[in-house]
Amino acid sequence: MALTPARTMPGVLELLPLDQIAFQRMLDTIRRNYERFGFLPIETPVIEYSDVLLTKTGGETERQVYFVQSTGALGAAEKGGVPELALRFDLTVPLARYVAEHEHDLSFPFRRYQMQRVYRGERAQRGRFREFYQCDIDVIGKDSLSVRYDAEIPAVIYSVFRDLAIGPFTIQLNNRKLMRGYFENLGIADPERQMLVLREVDKLDKRGPDYVRDTLTGEAFGLSAEAAAKILGFVQVRSTSVAEAFDKLDALGTGSDTFEQGRAELKEVLGLIRDFGVPETHFALNLSIARGLDYYTGTVYETTLNDHPGIGSICSGGRYENLAGQYTKSHLPGVGISIGLTRLYWQLRDAGLVSTAESTVDALVTQMDAAQMPTYLAVAGELRNAGIATEVVLEGGKLGKQFKYADRAGIRFVLVIGEDEIAKGVVTVKDLRREDQFEVSRADLVKALRVELAQAEIGR
Amino acid sequence: MALTPARTMPGVLELLPLDQIAFQRMLDTIRRNYERFGFLPIETPVIEYSDVLLTKTGGETERQVYFVQSTGALGAAEKGGVPELALRFDLTVPLARYVAEHEHDLSFPFRRYQMQRVYRGERAQRGRFREFYQCDIDVIGKDSLSVRYDAEIPAVIYSVFRDLAIGPFTIQLNNRKLMRGYFENLGIADPERQMLVLREVDKLDKRGPDYVRDTLTGEAFGLSAEAAAKILGFVQVRSTSVAEAFDKLDALGTGSDTFEQGRAELKEVLGLIRDFGVPETHFALNLSIARGLDYYTGTVYETTLNDHPGIGSICSGGRYENLAGQYTKSHLPGVGISIGLTRLYWQLRDAGLVSTAESTVDALVTQMDAAQMPTYLAVAGELRNAGIATEVVLEGGKLGKQFKYADRAGIRFVLVIGEDEIAKGVVTVKDLRREDQFEVSRADLVKALRVELAQAEIGR
Repeated sequence: MALTPARTMPGVLELLPLDQIAFQRMLDTIRRNYERFGFLPIETPVIEYSDVLLTKTGGETERQVYFVQSTGALGAAEKGGVPELALRFDLTVPLARYVAEHEHDLSFPFRRYQMQRVYRGERAQRGRFREFYQCDIDVIGKDSLSVRYDAEIPAVIYSVFRDLAIGPFTIQLNNRKLMRGYFENLGIADPERQMLVLREVDKLDKRGPDYVRDTLTGEAFGLSAEAAAKILGFVQVRSTSVAEAFDKLDALGTGSDTFEQGRAELKEVLGLIRDFGVPETHFALNLSIARGLDYYTGTVYETTLNDHPGIGSICSGGRYENLAGQYTKSHLPGVGISIGLTRLYWQLRDAGLVSTAESTVDALVTQMDAAQMPTYLAVAGELRNAGIATEVVLEGGKLGKQFKYADRAGIRFVLVIGEDEIAKGVVTVKDLRREDQFEVSRADLVKALRVELAQAEIGR
Repeated sequence: MALTPARTMPGVLELLPLDQIAFQRMLDTIRRNYERFGFLPIETPVIEYSDVLLTKTGGETERQVYFVQSTGALGAAEKGGVPELALRFDLTVPLARYVAEHEHDLSFPFRRYQMQRVYRGERAQRGRFREFYQCDIDVIGKDSLSVRYDAEIPAVIYSVFRDLAIGPFTIQLNNRKLMRGYFENLGIADPERQMLVLREVDKLDKRGPDYVRDTLTGEAFGLSAEAAAKILGFVQVRSTSVAEAFDKLDALGTGSDTFEQGRAELKEVLGLIRDFGVPETHFALNLSIARGLDYYTGTVYETTLNDHPGIGSICSGGRYENLAGQYTKSHLPGVGISIGLTRLYWQLRDAGLVSTAESTVDALVTQMDAAQMPTYLAVAGELRNAGIATEVVLEGGKLGKQFKYADRAGIRFVLVIGEDEIAKGVVTVKDLRREDQFEVSRADLVKALRVELAQAEIGR
């Protein structure tokens, strides 16, 4: 029989077990923090009805959707447009559908977290993923949602990235009302045109101020040099403390109602973030942040690693006016963020900030003598019952080979129980990490390994 | 704008948050036990190349595959047969592809667990799922794999279902060699014909012995009444202890090499399962088990709930000769099992064996006075830092409404910090589960809640 080459499509990140463990630990850390802040888990199906998924979007997203057809439905698409089913491309649209569908069974404010994979038919390219994890939280209000929730989100972000321990980071905030109001002051009142200006401004980091100034004063926008300068001054506002943020916000002068509302919101949010216990070193005003998505209406967030600005935002989101207008007449304002963990993990690994994990297997019971198998199994059972992940060598073979296996597999403790040990009622423990070994009585084995593992946990 | 009805396709199980928590706890329990036995995690992409997925299978599976096409590729299938991409329909084929693809980076025996969703284009029907979780473990050897691993698998099954605490269960074992050998003795030597007989025998539980006897002695098989009786006697062998199993296996008489090999394997496996510490009440010989899949070659397992035989097997699998012959020339024997958790959860809930979980949120800090927000946030921060999942009411509103929210959301502790409490430096804790309340100083709050939560953990 001819062999089929074993391969996966480009744009997926498939990991070897020890890398998978490292990835899983990041997922667990995120989940733990989301739960600590009182967010509830949901999972939605990967496959949604196409008309549900594609109500709102258009353009780029629609071109990137993966459609799904069961064998019987193949070809049916040609008759009536797009196939009936598609894979979700984010977790926000499924959340909107979920909240609209289960509205009467949910308590509001509805605080949900969701950590699942999403699918986009991206062109194959380094660092572009067609399948990737998103780890989202959102708080959804019914009719209204206090701006205080906008301050809770950065507290969660802080807690997550503190625990992920991938280096210093800054949560950067802006407010779309402040931006819009500021533009109105400059005579850019048309929302469509504001959006276009915001899109140009969004290129500031990539293209630089000269490019943006030229575009804004050029034919397409026709702004005065003064207006362009004011916009560029605005978007370059940064802060290093809450007091400085307040000063800089005050220095922007007075403005329209929208502007004043945005400023008031930003001030309240900045003050509350501090009350939430987030150190002032870890959040800042950044008036250049606009976020690509059109539906953010108030606070917007980006988070960057101080030492790796090139990685870009590792956690973004904001406040939106109405989550599920396409599915329900209920008014559902919300605020949320998303961590694209697959890309983040890939970038961190690339930058040497995460490495292959130690194995989840703590101990390997070697096989000196197959006749002693009942003893080996009993020892392994004791360890497992104590929560120590243990593998037993069932296949046999030379002891050297068994040690090599443990070493390669990243297992820390190798247990040897030979004739001598059995006669003395002890176990020889080789600690491959410390390159050390000790003898311990069977009765004290669990305790001894627990102590060592607890120390490793503290040191982690 | 016309509203799009918010809905999901039939055959998916989407849960409300408290049910999702119950489901997640089951996933966590399974994961913990898989890890305790030294299995390593992997995850594979949902989307695989169609030619990789469909090398081996045919018939039913192929008809149930969901094909995937990005927008640009729509219609391309009509030109060249099936689309290039498809969703995995199990975790075994992706495992085979994974091991073949990463063979040189893996240590053997390769012990992996994988808990992900799979997709089948089933007809819409109660209890039939188009998207469902499989929780698999497999041990894959290179060239060979000791039959001792066949005994480890039931030890894992025992550990998982003991911890899931869904009632008494029995792991039932058979061996395909024993079966085949027994049939050879009866003159049914052709493997094809054996398979057909096994398929009939597999209907014993559903159709009863008379139906099977009639079929075997009828035109299609033409077996003698004696042969049919022997087969029926064979498949009705059960045991209640290892000693009884040995006796019943010995009573089968002598047979071909294959038969003797099967008997020897079964005896070794049964003895070792006991050495692994599995109580004899929880595993048994059941010579009717054949398993539908054609590729099992030795030990086969099914697990049933003693009090709910109607649910059928909740965990099945077995030993196979060669995992990945379609992708690699390496000989990779293995043994493994799968838990179809979505269906199991659904059945357990249907039978009243799992209920909605308590919330993952332990405490709600109410809002008596918005001016005290910094205090509320500080208290919540202290609780969260101590690992106590805490939500703060940021929206305000009447206290009664806040309590109602906690009650409906399944949050156990409601914390009240009003003027009195602030003056006295205390917190009033209402325990909604015990319908009790107590006052505790701010300094002792964390300790008090920890004690209560630890007691709840023990009682769970």
